[in-house]
Amino acid sequence: MHISELDTPVPVVDYDIACRNIRRLQEYCDANRFKLRPHIKTHKLPLFAHEQCKAGAVGITVQKLGEAEIMAHTGLTDILITYNVMGQEKAERLARLTNFARLSVAIDNEKALQSLAWAGSRARVPIGVLIEFESGGNRQGVQTPGQAVDLAKAVLSHSGVEFIGLMTYPTTTKTAEFLREALPLFRKAGIEVSVISGGGTPNAYRTHELAPVNELRVGTYIYNDRMMMAAQAARLEDCALSVLATVVSRPRSERAVIDAGSKTLSSDLLAPGQGAGYGLLPDYPDASIERLNEEHGVLDLGRSPRKPEIGERVRIIPNHVCVVTNLHDSIYLHRDGAVLAQLSVYLRGKTI
Amino acid sequence: MHISELDTPVPVVDYDIACRNIRRLQEYCDANRFKLRPHIKTHKLPLFAHEQCKAGAVGITVQKLGEAEIMAHTGLTDILITYNVMGQEKAERLARLTNFARLSVAIDNEKALQSLAWAGSRARVPIGVLIEFESGGNRQGVQTPGQAVDLAKAVLSHSGVEFIGLMTYPTTTKTAEFLREALPLFRKAGIEVSVISGGGTPNAYRTHELAPVNELRVGTYIYNDRMMMAAQAARLEDCALSVLATVVSRPRSERAVIDAGSKTLSSDLLAPGQGAGYGLLPDYPDASIERLNEEHGVLDLGRSPRKPEIGERVRIIPNHVCVVTNLHDSIYLHRDGAVLAQLSVYLRGKTI
Repeated sequence: MHISELDTPVPVVDYDIACRNIRRLQEYCDANRFKLRPHIKTHKLPLFAHEQCKAGAVGITVQKLGEAEIMAHTGLTDILITYNVMGQEKAERLARLTNFARLSVAIDNEKALQSLAWAGSRARVPIGVLIEFESGGNRQGVQTPGQAVDLAKAVLSHSGVEFIGLMTYPTTTKTAEFLREALPLFRKAGIEVSVISGGGTPNAYRTHELAPVNELRVGTYIYNDRMMMAAQAARLEDCALSVLATVVSRPRSERAVIDAGSKTLSSDLLAPGQGAGYGLLPDYPDASIERLNEEHGVLDLGRSPRKPEIGERVRIIPNHVCVVTNLHDSIYLHRDGAVLAQLSVYLRGKTI
Repeated sequence: MHISELDTPVPVVDYDIACRNIRRLQEYCDANRFKLRPHIKTHKLPLFAHEQCKAGAVGITVQKLGEAEIMAHTGLTDILITYNVMGQEKAERLARLTNFARLSVAIDNEKALQSLAWAGSRARVPIGVLIEFESGGNRQGVQTPGQAVDLAKAVLSHSGVEFIGLMTYPTTTKTAEFLREALPLFRKAGIEVSVISGGGTPNAYRTHELAPVNELRVGTYIYNDRMMMAAQAARLEDCALSVLATVVSRPRSERAVIDAGSKTLSSDLLAPGQGAGYGLLPDYPDASIERLNEEHGVLDLGRSPRKPEIGERVRIIPNHVCVVTNLHDSIYLHRDGAVLAQLSVYLRGKTI
């Protein structure tokens, strides 16, 4: 079966491009002696998690416990959860999961530590703990090196959990500033920092210039998307996932409607100044996906010399591929258009 | 079980509010002699589709064939698909579905008509056809009354399909303008227009002032959301669906991070000028959900006198509830907080 025979809208993944993206970053990490721990939020597939580990990754990164469970139950054995795990129910699940994989968790506060400590006291093997710190992402993480040391000390006061290092997102020059101050404080306190984990696809290949991390967590690099192209982190030929859609209406000569709306492409936009619209049409580069309703994508063809006809299929590179895979029950894997597999997106919707 | 015991993030639906919203619009339609044909894109649940029909709706509206299939297979017998159904595969599915329900389809072009005609020639009962027309939504639909009549004539040239009327979205004063010109043309051509179907929750209760439609298609009214509040179409107490989330980090005094990001709330924003951020926190009305990553919601608490603590649960009214239900495998139905059911969102992800 060829992907042109698949009914639309449908996400398709070029297997060779994805594998090439896996190999290329692994080679960079090997050359620079970084451990690679890919974030599976982009593909959400056990198959690719195993491919990444076979290529040399030390383990995987997930955001939620529900993702860790599926990955552990499909044979992944070293899993980092970069999210404050909190509450009794999640603590119980975390403890149970230590029967199947080596788990570590990144936290930034004492309340999360309480949950981890409870889980650790019931765990089959100790749970690794990293302290998340601020690198300018203005999301979460302790704000000062002193807070990091204090929280690490609190980790050390519990059995069943094991302090293993520091974690941040994204890796920036502020990461280096924080570490310059933090690492001497840890040394002074006699606390070993084995892992320093940074992340983010846009700067992945610049990690060696940015900060003294020894582990990389990156997700989007396996598929890439229009955001990564805008960030100069990928070329069109590095984009492994496309959405195939059909033109279902041409109400005016300069307007087309495709059967891919926000339920297919998501409403995620590029950062201001990086490009307008909800995706890139490589075969109609001057057409803009200017509006999305849930099931309708409205194309402005005003500046496109060629215009797709009703019934024609178009290919779309989505703005943000990680949220696209979360919208689909399955993706089709292909090689040069020949379908290799329909894969369930096993980790889709695992927000808990 | 009480909803406060559910692990987060989780969407919960107040059953009594949803039922009250169903009754209230049905009463308006009954009083004004409109047929009500609710759009199920908001709840995506056979249970509520049946509740809507029991309350007096003549049938339901869906956008995609996959939605129609599940609804027909769970006992709904009168289904309008307001979308150009196109291609051989979909035509075959449509034909098969006529064994279980009376189907009608709104189209705006000849190519879609070809697919319908093929389906109609294999259908157990004729497939109803409506012509979609432009009412200022600038999405799809024929642009002129003349085009509508021409397409209706083309419908009449096929057996197995049956022209039943006109359809537009949303209902506006332009709907009235179009009909003022179109209806005499249809009369002159000797073509009966039985159904004139308008839609949209924001103006639903003004339909009688806007245009001479005889059928209403509305979806969001059952749950409502922050968009409907901004459009003055709902009050807070009319919002049936909330997302419960937990504060997992308080990295700074003016910043909180909740465990609901774009995979839970979607990235949909309100229209410019209607309100900032990604949702409303009724218990912290001055807090803003200023940024979302996939699993992180970043709250700005700078203007909020009270600030939620780490571990605290917060309630969120989402910006756009229809895309939120598409992100979750199930919702919890409750009455005064007591869980009545965990319902699978059966129509989630049915984009084909």
